[in-house]
Amino acid sequence: MKATVMHGPGDVRYDTVDDPKILKSTDAIIQLSATCICGSDLWPYRGHGDFSQPMHMGHEYCGVVVEVGADVKSVKPGQFVVGSFVLSDNTCPHCQFGFPSSCEQREFMTGAQAPYARVPLADGALVATNELPTDDQIPHMLAVSDVLGTGYYAAEAAGVKSGSTAVVVGDGAVGLMGVLSAKLQGAERVIAMSRHKDRQKLALEYGATDIVETRGEEGISDVLELTNGVGADAVLECVGLQQSMDQAMGVCRPGGSVGFVGVPHEVTFTGEGLFFAQKRLFGGPAPVRRYLPNLMDMVLKGEIAPGKVFDLELPLAQVAEGYKAMDERRAIKTMLRV
Amino acid sequence: MKATVMHGPGDVRYDTVDDPKILKSTDAIIQLSATCICGSDLWPYRGHGDFSQPMHMGHEYCGVVVEVGADVKSVKPGQFVVGSFVLSDNTCPHCQFGFPSSCEQREFMTGAQAPYARVPLADGALVATNELPTDDQIPHMLAVSDVLGTGYYAAEAAGVKSGSTAVVVGDGAVGLMGVLSAKLQGAERVIAMSRHKDRQKLALEYGATDIVETRGEEGISDVLELTNGVGADAVLECVGLQQSMDQAMGVCRPGGSVGFVGVPHEVTFTGEGLFFAQKRLFGGPAPVRRYLPNLMDMVLKGEIAPGKVFDLELPLAQVAEGYKAMDERRAIKTMLRV
Repeated sequence: MKATVMHGPGDVRYDTVDDPKILKSTDAIIQLSATCICGSDLWPYRGHGDFSQPMHMGHEYCGVVVEVGADVKSVKPGQFVVGSFVLSDNTCPHCQFGFPSSCEQREFMTGAQAPYARVPLADGALVATNELPTDDQIPHMLAVSDVLGTGYYAAEAAGVKSGSTAVVVGDGAVGLMGVLSAKLQGAERVIAMSRHKDRQKLALEYGATDIVETRGEEGISDVLELTNGVGADAVLECVGLQQSMDQAMGVCRPGGSVGFVGVPHEVTFTGEGLFFAQKRLFGGPAPVRRYLPNLMDMVLKGEIAPGKVFDLELPLAQVAEGYKAMDERRAIKTMLRV
Repeated sequence: MKATVMHGPGDVRYDTVDDPKILKSTDAIIQLSATCICGSDLWPYRGHGDFSQPMHMGHEYCGVVVEVGADVKSVKPGQFVVGSFVLSDNTCPHCQFGFPSSCEQREFMTGAQAPYARVPLADGALVATNELPTDDQIPHMLAVSDVLGTGYYAAEAAGVKSGSTAVVVGDGAVGLMGVLSAKLQGAERVIAMSRHKDRQKLALEYGATDIVETRGEEGISDVLELTNGVGADAVLECVGLQQSMDQAMGVCRPGGSVGFVGVPHEVTFTGEGLFFAQKRLFGGPAPVRRYLPNLMDMVLKGEIAPGKVFDLELPLAQVAEGYKAMDERRAIKTMLRV
């Protein structure tokens, strides 16, 4: 089959690759209904990657099961499934504690920007629907797999609760899902820090109550002014750079929490700085598997529309253009129709 | 009067100083019933300090009010009071949010290793008892002011709840209070990491269920073995060095929390390390003022005996020997009778 392979920075090709097959008895093969490009795929695209061998790209996925290994019990061919970008067995102590993203058997999904993909740990990783979703529901289901789940975790890690004042740092797709998630988790006020009009519009649609266009020290001071000098209860850091982390810490109130979900690149903290700031810090790969049943249910009931973050839709064969559009910020997030 | 002054590393003197007096209308003067030496006093004693001017030592205190400024309403001369080592107004948004240790008017107490001391922000900082406590109750009341309150915060910041497995890193006075606090907050299992027999004994008395004598990588592996390879839900880091912090992170389970209360000295974290560890991190100066009413009440009812951490009692005039004994680890914590 043909699928997405990154050969080096900026070099994404729709290449012929081996068809995926069952390698372990716990695997499943799915036919993707749609797939997409993640903000984190741009890190290697921009040169932060190990290119000792070509990379089979794609970790966000939903689709129909076509084959399962001998030990797979919970899903079967013909079912529509969504899985997390982190594969987990859903039975180990970390999974049971609510952190499948730190599963003892953790693997990270790859190769999903393709017509077919192998899903390891299928019993643990996949959640099936009762019926096949409609075409209109596909983008929203796909979003649950990573980008919504990650935004949802940012809000949870930031301790959002009923009545909270939340700030979202980062207006990429994850940040926009963070806005939606903060609202879903009860935030009364959601301040989105965003400089792009189109993203501000979507943030407002998802429940942002305030937009702050400034950033850095100026952004911090503007958020403090909006919160009577106090700062926010909960801050969602959805970028992963030192500047965005400093901004997140700066807008958080003492005793508040920063949830960070952008994989940090060259971000450091001093113990003394964290001590005197007195702000909770919690991040990591999102435990999306735990959220899947609830978030998929909300999509099917039409209560949320996370797929609106896909503002560019291309056939999979044009995946290279999809990367380019996101790299150049012409698109927030690209969906690829298979 | 004579009081405790540090002139340089290892140089503590019982010197003549000016009597404390009311400087602001919100001050009180107290006559100390007892005072003590804090583990954090040993940092400058061991050379980590700014000695551009002599330091008036002491920030843990309880005693009888002798004078109040014109604006002090909540305490009056003759009352016995305990205050936090962090002075706070108890009315600002951070105080109201439960973090008086990050009060907008925050000051740190000084000059309490003395017969008399000035307490700024008296209305916010001090809590009075209905009656004068007995002599036997004094050490326990004194312990509430910092060492118990700090251990209590370590447990809270580490998210201890009913049924938790907790690990306490550090067997100094704060660590021992951490053991007691984890128990008070509902921990089912409390693993104390301690290499000293006398401290182990007190840890067991305060509720430790297991003692681990090893540390570093070996200590981490021993705790993991005790917890079926999982790690602890809640870890109290009560030292403040890179080694102890690494140990704390190492024994914590993914999704668990590390509460750190030892002021960190040259401790650093990478964002990426924290991200993939997926462990909550929360520290800071303890919000003792919030705990005072409850902890003082437990002392008066005889429910807790935190004063047992004082294993050396000296007259204030011998304060220099008190520092020496703690520096040489001959004493866990020195109480000074005034």
